[in-house]
Amino acid sequence: MRITDITITPVAFRDPPLLNSAGVHEPWALRSIVEVHTDEGVSGLGESYGDIGHLDRLSRVAPALVGLDVHQLNVMHRRVAEVLGGKSGDDRHGLTGKLTVEGTVDRVFSPFEVATWDIRGKALGRPVSDLLGGAVRDAVPYSAYLFYKWAGHPGAEPDQWGEAVDPAGIVAQAERLIAEYGFGSIKLKGGVFPPDEEIAAIHALREAFPTLPLRLDPNAAWSVETSIRVAEALDGVVEYLEDPTEGIPGLSEVAAKAPMPLATNMYVVAFEHIAPSVAVDAVQVVLSDHHYWGGLSRSRNLASTCETFGIGLSMHSNSHLGISLAAMTHLAAATPNLSYACDTHYPWNREDDVVLPGALTFVDGAVPVPTTPGLGVELDRDALARLAENYRTCGIVQRDDTGYMQKFDPTYERLRPRW
Amino acid sequence: MRITDITITPVAFRDPPLLNSAGVHEPWALRSIVEVHTDEGVSGLGESYGDIGHLDRLSRVAPALVGLDVHQLNVMHRRVAEVLGGKSGDDRHGLTGKLTVEGTVDRVFSPFEVATWDIRGKALGRPVSDLLGGAVRDAVPYSAYLFYKWAGHPGAEPDQWGEAVDPAGIVAQAERLIAEYGFGSIKLKGGVFPPDEEIAAIHALREAFPTLPLRLDPNAAWSVETSIRVAEALDGVVEYLEDPTEGIPGLSEVAAKAPMPLATNMYVVAFEHIAPSVAVDAVQVVLSDHHYWGGLSRSRNLASTCETFGIGLSMHSNSHLGISLAAMTHLAAATPNLSYACDTHYPWNREDDVVLPGALTFVDGAVPVPTTPGLGVELDRDALARLAENYRTCGIVQRDDTGYMQKFDPTYERLRPRW
Ligand SMILES: [Mg+2]
Ligand SMILES: [Mg+2]
Repeated sequence: MRITDITITPVAFRDPPLLNSAGVHEPWALRSIVEVHTDEGVSGLGESYGDIGHLDRLSRVAPALVGLDVHQLNVMHRRVAEVLGGKSGDDRHGLTGKLTVEGTVDRVFSPFEVATWDIRGKALGRPVSDLLGGAVRDAVPYSAYLFYKWAGHPGAEPDQWGEAVDPAGIVAQAERLIAEYGFGSIKLKGGVFPPDEEIAAIHALREAFPTLPLRLDPNAAWSVETSIRVAEALDGVVEYLEDPTEGIPGLSEVAAKAPMPLATNMYVVAFEHIAPSVAVDAVQVVLSDHHYWGGLSRSRNLASTCETFGIGLSMHSNSHLGISLAAMTHLAAATPNLSYACDTHYPWNREDDVVLPGALTFVDGAVPVPTTPGLGVELDRDALARLAENYRTCGIVQRDDTGYMQKFDPTYERLRPRW
Repeated sequence: MRITDITITPVAFRDPPLLNSAGVHEPWALRSIVEVHTDEGVSGLGESYGDIGHLDRLSRVAPALVGLDVHQLNVMHRRVAEVLGGKSGDDRHGLTGKLTVEGTVDRVFSPFEVATWDIRGKALGRPVSDLLGGAVRDAVPYSAYLFYKWAGHPGAEPDQWGEAVDPAGIVAQAERLIAEYGFGSIKLKGGVFPPDEEIAAIHALREAFPTLPLRLDPNAAWSVETSIRVAEALDGVVEYLEDPTEGIPGLSEVAAKAPMPLATNMYVVAFEHIAPSVAVDAVQVVLSDHHYWGGLSRSRNLASTCETFGIGLSMHSNSHLGISLAAMTHLAAATPNLSYACDTHYPWNREDDVVLPGALTFVDGAVPVPTTPGLGVELDRDALARLAENYRTCGIVQRDDTGYMQKFDPTYERLRPRW
């Protein structure tokens, strides 16, 4: 079953003004939708980043994959590396770590690889989770992903979510998300306000939700000293602290004193980072992400390595659509040692999805694993056309949370550490 | 596609008197042939150890797998662990390391897992290598596996191979194996004679085959001091030294001084051994073996972890038949970082194979990867019946190289280290 054609469609979808340590989300989030077609009439879907550099890399790689059989993942990975020719991408927003050559190959390979699983599943009449060794859970738990946010984008009407800039706002946001989705654990994106305010928000969440696991992720906004101070203040309150400070050496220093596990999706983001991190016990939880880690097969390799080294496994998310949610759900379902609820931005962006409704739902905070063939999602062609038109008109070609923040506060700087 | 029935047939096949650090091979080697049947009429093959304890574990596990879908590898692995109930097997000959609870689960799981790949491949009309990510090589190189040996089993006629107890005998054996199979690298099983004699044999091989990679494996017959001395004497002559001494701490001491990489199939034999070995850089090459490591999927996990930690990957063999050779070949073909020729005992045992001839051949020292569906081998029912009858009459139920040696030399002891 050979690849005859690959279509890559950049899309843009509305995104609320979510705050993080690098700035604020722009009004449009970018994504690429990959369709892989075969000579047997079966097609598959993948989804990845939509930044211009990444789109360029996807477009340069795609023709080199035409003609390959959809089972030839090893050869496909090598082809991607050959086309990229040892050059790493850039990733200006810096929220998913520094891009290396190896990491760039895996990020470019990922959506094509996912599409081949979709194809193989459809051809076999089996859900992708079956091809990954079989689901060990019928539904995949996700966490309520809380953000500090403005009431709306400056100059626009307030959005449906309203403002959240203090503990009360965060608790209200959690209540709404949990009422609607039933989430059983909570993550707060921090690194926005001085640490004591974020500690207060976590304590407020603990009070409002006495039994739910909590996490805090300041995206490396803190120094080692601040990180240790926050860790001590949240002893017994958070299940893990995510990327409190910058770099493997810094995380290792914090980990030595922090009473809870540290997690990362910023400093262990490619296979080459694992050994250096293990050597100094920098993190105790890795947030996997098939968009970083070269798709589903290589994410499974990551999972196994984590299990082997006694490292916990959670799952990271960027702003994404339903193809990614389906892939994340199949992968998580078939990963026995995924020991934490996965992150997802989906509630923030789901109104603009490119897949036909109905395949993906949240029940008690978990997404039931699709049991239909392949990923179990189908493109909504009208929605795709609409989101592609958004991309053409939105004027954004590269995520830039810092630059967008500076529009409103010219003195704003991206600082690491900020506190 | 659900499992309806599993047949386990213990078999015995003729084995020459091959010498190693634990004694000498008995006249019969044992193996188990596993057939997994499904409700769609497709069956699959697996092959594993034939020792009585292992057979008992396979037999107890098999009924617990009936009813499972052949894709449910994760659930199947958990079922195996449940049935075994936290008990580890024993492994008296000690040549494949100490059995742990986790390692026992993986050894029992392996033949069933392999059979499901065979089934899935047949159902899809694809070779197993395709299901593993696709072959990156059309043929898998194996090494000429040399053994010191007696002319024949005591009391029997000399076998076709003749005696090999000195450098000249070893070189003659290599010449014969290479003439017949075309092998492009050579492994000598050592630990039999005093180290200086084995060093001399390696030097004789180097002289006879100036360009072929060489390996020496004394199965932990040496002290740390002796290992370092041998390593220095073979500097620039062997590509790796395999299990020179006992245990991860010992190997680490040797590795710190040895000029070549150390390899193991004795002390990193389960996932739980990897982290302790990495922590002290005990070995630089792991000999994978899907019979130890829980089948093909988990062997791929091992391969990935080795790549991630900069550990070389080779492949180990025990006396085996064609089902194992087919599985080894598909796995090796689809493992990009398998950087060494694989070991195989096959030339020593191939006359008694249970698979129909023709599917597996050696061309220039490599086995072309079968391109037919599944593993690409079919049972020879007559041969299976013959080998099963051998098992019933041979009087051996557990490999015991040491006990067999003691029949002829009552003073023989298994010593580690011996030198
Ligand atoms: Mg994060
Ligand atoms: Mg060995």
